[in-house]
Amino acid sequence: MKINRIDHISVAVRNLKQARETWEPVLGKPGPDHTYVDEREKIRVARYWLGETAFELMESTAPDRDVARYIEKHGEGVMVVSLNVDRTREAVDELAAKGYPFIPDSTGQVARPFKDREFAFIHPRNMTGVLTELIDDNPRRPKGP
Amino acid sequence: MKINRIDHISVAVRNLKQARETWEPVLGKPGPDHTYVDEREKIRVARYWLGETAFELMESTAPDRDVARYIEKHGEGVMVVSLNVDRTREAVDELAAKGYPFIPDSTGQVARPFKDREFAFIHPRNMTGVLTELIDDNPRRPKGP
Repeated sequence: MKINRIDHISVAVRNLKQARETWEPVLGKPGPDHTYVDEREKIRVARYWLGETAFELMESTAPDRDVARYIEKHGEGVMVVSLNVDRTREAVDELAAKGYPFIPDSTGQVARPFKDREFAFIHPRNMTGVLTELIDDNPRRPKGP
Repeated sequence: MKINRIDHISVAVRNLKQARETWEPVLGKPGPDHTYVDEREKIRVARYWLGETAFELMESTAPDRDVARYIEKHGEGVMVVSLNVDRTREAVDELAAKGYPFIPDSTGQVARPFKDREFAFIHPRNMTGVLTELIDDNPRRPKGP
């Protein structure tokens, strides 16, 4: 198993609009490179490319879902570190065999779909508090320096 | 101001030895690429290169210092996101002029020395809970894909 790179990190924020105003001068960006709403995960995201890694600001679109609950427990901060692998399912199989606990989604799947990629979460209580994601390589990321 | 890349992220952990055992199979590494103790910051660190970004596990070497206090307040997790810039002092000046609060070290310096680089921290309360670091480019990082 090999990690290609940190695919993205996601910061759980209370208010995406305010967080954008805070972060954009520091990121040196006039706005996000991409925004999206993930209806399954109930998150609204602003994504900024920093080199080969994406930096995401993420707010909950539902008061009782994971991002809102994370903030209630820990405060705002980096909730997800996503590790880019060649094949998510192979990485999941390798780590599950070693006893790492993956979090199934509401349908019971461990490998969750996102566009043409799949991703999976290892439980943060087993990963020093970090919600650790494995995700398939993304052929659309920016190339070069 | 331009961010070149995410220089490193640092996970505050209670026990570095146990955290290494947890993380190394997931990082796909038999051990750290580098370890160091920073006597000024009172941290012991294991550092792993994941592409162009370093992933650090960091424990406190003193019970009353920042890493220990972070864990007491938030639990273990990603404490620092470090953004690589061409010149730390210029980035600090630009952001301080916009009102971003930097944290001086015990000697009152904002730009802190680390080997041949300098780094500076923006206060996490102004950055959605993220202790945000700016750091000079590192000519010794691995090159290539």
